[in-house]
Amino acid sequence: MSNIKIGVVTVSDRASKGIYEDISGKEIIKVMEEYLISEWEPVYEVIPDEQYIIEETLIKMSDEEGCCLIFTTGGTGPAPRDVTPEATENVCHKMMPGFGELMRQESLKYVPTAILSRQTAGIRNKALIVNLPGKPKSIRECIQAVFPAIPYCVELAEGPILDTNDKNIKVFRPKKK
Amino acid sequence: MSNIKIGVVTVSDRASKGIYEDISGKEIIKVMEEYLISEWEPVYEVIPDEQYIIEETLIKMSDEEGCCLIFTTGGTGPAPRDVTPEATENVCHKMMPGFGELMRQESLKYVPTAILSRQTAGIRNKALIVNLPGKPKSIRECIQAVFPAIPYCVELAEGPILDTNDKNIKVFRPKKK
Amino acid sequence: MSNIKIGVVTVSDRASKGIYEDISGKEIIKVMEEYLISEWEPVYEVIPDEQYIIEETLIKMSDEEGCCLIFTTGGTGPAPRDVTPEATENVCHKMMPGFGELMRQESLKYVPTAILSRQTAGIRNKALIVNLPGKPKSIRECIQAVFPAIPYCVELAEGPILDTNDKNIKVFRPKKK
Repeated sequence: MSNIKIGVVTVSDRASKGIYEDISGKEIIKVMEEYLISEWEPVYEVIPDEQYIIEETLIKMSDEEGCCLIFTTGGTGPAPRDVTPEATENVCHKMMPGFGELMRQESLKYVPTAILSRQTAGIRNKALIVNLPGKPKSIRECIQAVFPAIPYCVELAEGPILDTNDKNIKVFRPKKK
Repeated sequence: MSNIKIGVVTVSDRASKGIYEDISGKEIIKVMEEYLISEWEPVYEVIPDEQYIIEETLIKMSDEEGCCLIFTTGGTGPAPRDVTPEATENVCHKMMPGFGELMRQESLKYVPTAILSRQTAGIRNKALIVNLPGKPKSIRECIQAVFPAIPYCVELAEGPILDTNDKNIKVFRPKKK
Repeated sequence: MSNIKIGVVTVSDRASKGIYEDISGKEIIKVMEEYLISEWEPVYEVIPDEQYIIEETLIKMSDEEGCCLIFTTGGTGPAPRDVTPEATENVCHKMMPGFGELMRQESLKYVPTAILSRQTAGIRNKALIVNLPGKPKSIRECIQAVFPAIPYCVELAEGPILDTNDKNIKVFRPKKK
């Protein structure tokens, strides 16, 4: 019934093989449940660190499923199999460098290795795609840092209005001219 | 008589159609009048959010008009018609990521939606091109943040010497080796 | 005997012609001597600001010499001959934007012209390549800012373990899951 769909893509060779349970994607869904008042439904997938699979999943979620917002988790580091930022850049029409800058700056408060995260964000058609780190604790820190700007961004990208729970997150919308 | 030309490009569908007056470009000119002691003249245009028109305007201002510095305002957000950063990147020979980073960081002091600005800067031939936000208040905050480095940058890019009014802006030039 | 090689590339038209002595590359080697306990050897070159020579040198140091870490100094500014970031981006398989962001932020504590540095970092095969500024004082400030993340990055990129002197630099490795 709801027409707000939010994509959650866990990118992990091991989680996709069932070697361990995906707790990262679930953490994203949990944070969204805390933040959003609007009715919404998650579109959730766990996939391996293969660039073409990540790209296909992002395209499907934005173009076919009609997600207005897609979070990825995992695959943003410097290891050979880490290709989530490259996949994101390949499918986006507009890059949003401010998201990666702010998330790294936020994570730097906790660990100096925050600079190793290559996470980025961008817009494909009407979907905002945001790369998040792999660890549940860092996921929460990063979403908290950037989410105040997300509902306004989704509106500018011609997506739906996301109503939020002011007790859990303060979002910001500049006054229209 | 002056040989210092500074380009001011307002990118806005509505301002270019005369639906409202361009106050953003005029704010840039006003700030430059406060900052500069050197004789200079503005080369000023109001154009729509069309990527090829933005690119042609930037090329004309740098290559034909001989502007040493070009400011754009508008078109840096996530909306479908916002293409100023893409146009800037397409015409520049060198990108200067530090400008966008610092301007977003500066704007973040005021609004969390500062991360939605995709503004960048770069050099085309001998012209430094800097994207500014659309709102007059943010324009002033952003120029103030980056201008201390601009006269030295223009000199390194083989442009003219910009003399400034120390009472209104403190610029910085490292000592030559 | 040591199998840890660290590349140091001084990019400077004047130093490569012997017009002045390269003190920048030597400063990098000195800082590494202070930081590292592991046995290592420098692979050191002084080359002109020619993009194809920079690219060839970086490729040779990573692919033939097997350096796990390569520092460049010089050529990151806005002048026409400054092309080190372009050469770095051309030879890297993965870009690491967090390094440039943090180094500019660090240098901004000292000089507003820090935003003119276009320095970046990336990974080519198993080598982490990091652009440093040209001035010895800024080199030390920048390495100090990013080095805490470097040994872990080199390991993730499948390079050797770099043991460090805790008295001179505190490095960080997150606990493995």
